Amino acid sequence: MEKLTLIKVGGKIVEEPDTLRELLKTFAQISGHKVLVHGGGRSATKVAAQLGIESVMINGRRVTDAETLKVVTMVYGGLVSKNIVAGLQALSVNALGMTGADMNILLSEKRPVKEVDYGFVGDVKEAHGDTLAALIRAGVVPVLAPLTHDGKGQLLNTNADTIAGETAKALAPYFDVTLVFCFEKKGVLKDENDDNSVIPVINKEQFDQYVRDGIVQGGMIPKLENAFRAIDAGVKEVVITQASSIQSGKGTHIVK
Amino acid sequence: MEKLTLIKVGGKIVEEPDTLRELLKTFAQISGHKVLVHGGGRSATKVAAQLGIESVMINGRRVTDAETLKVVTMVYGGLVSKNIVAGLQALSVNALGMTGADMNILLSEKRPVKEVDYGFVGDVKEAHGDTLAALIRAGVVPVLAPLTHDGKGQLLNTNADTIAGETAKALAPYFDVTLVFCFEKKGVLKDENDDNSVIPVINKEQFDQYVRDGIVQGGMIPKLENAFRAIDAGVKEVVITQASSIQSGKGTHIVK
Repeated sequence: MEKLTLIKVGGKIVEEPDTLRELLKTFAQISGHKVLVHGGGRSATKVAAQLGIESVMINGRRVTDAETLKVVTMVYGGLVSKNIVAGLQALSVNALGMTGADMNILLSEKRPVKEVDYGFVGDVKEAHGDTLAALIRAGVVPVLAPLTHDGKGQLLNTNADTIAGETAKALAPYFDVTLVFCFEKKGVLKDENDDNSVIPVINKEQFDQYVRDGIVQGGMIPKLENAFRAIDAGVKEVVITQASSIQSGKGTHIVK
Repeated sequence: MEKLTLIKVGGKIVEEPDTLRELLKTFAQISGHKVLVHGGGRSATKVAAQLGIESVMINGRRVTDAETLKVVTMVYGGLVSKNIVAGLQALSVNALGMTGADMNILLSEKRPVKEVDYGFVGDVKEAHGDTLAALIRAGVVPVLAPLTHDGKGQLLNTNADTIAGETAKALAPYFDVTLVFCFEKKGVLKDENDDNSVIPVINKEQFDQYVRDGIVQGGMIPKLENAFRAIDAGVKEVVITQASSIQSGKGTHIVK
């Protein structure tokens, strides 16, 4: 099977012109098929504040009322997405900015209200890998914003890590998929105060032990759980690393 | 050749939930290949105002400084586009929201500063009909926002009528294109105070005469000039009508 690299980058990287430029250069140099999944939370919070809308986060997730949904639709689907696309086109990458609603690639359902009412937040129900694979084989490089739809006309805010994981899984039958989560650190750290304590490889058993020992904690836990689910679903490799290390292959490799 | 209908709708129709719903229903019922081009100026003005950015219009065109470009990228490329896409998907139309940067379909150049500096406004230089035609033949319904790019990473604000005209021309070698401009009135009126004075057919000679007589004036002049350029470039038919009359074929038909 042909190789495909799916890169997920957080808000911080794509929202600063300098780091965005570096990222796009790195991304353009990746050979073979590729997909970029981006966040945009910081810009969303900034634009929301400018519009007098308070950003409420619970467990790291944005509570999305109707007004907040408008903001994230503008910021993720418009501002961040289209600037990435224009930047990639300038580097001869045939980018196409998409949400899950576009060509119905990611169908979700509104998260049921339990302890928390997250509002217009969607959990992915179906990812249409066939549609995406056809686009990719035609030479298109999808740029995916963290928005999905319910198939009934409602856009929904969806976590970008989830979008990346679900998309990687949906593409696994068509390509040898490497899923790369970029973040600020060089990888998963053994000692959070030592940037050079990157754990090079983690399997499921080690992960469970690291969680028990408190070495892996906070936002890293759902990120790694996501990674293991992707591996279980046929994704060939998951890497957690810095944007600047994408090409080198450095970082933490998640294996079965 | 297969038939293609390209509908251009202004901001007013797509920005009110009720008229948008009606439009999408009508659009979904059009048989054969189709493309939707939308505006979004009213929402852009509203969001700009909420962000404390003054909207400056000269000759009906928005002066687009860096902050205003961000607003139109958010509103046209995000809010309006993605809500249309989600609405069409709910009606089983395989919509894909695009700007000119996406898949490089519309390349433009920043308008040179003459009497007026319009800022980040782009005049279309190349429309890639081949790319769009391939998508359309694959069953995709492009939804085009009034944004283009210069190929060097810069997004540019581009008039939606121009997008519609240039896209129709670029698709003319691949399809029998009918270009429909929707607006508030039933068509081009002989008497602006009489909504029933629609001119059913206008050719170039009659148009020139109507302009000399002051019957056709204001914003209708560039709209009709646009229409004639499209006809000259191979578009089969141009219709100016109300959104509710799309299916009936009523309105003003522009012929060679």
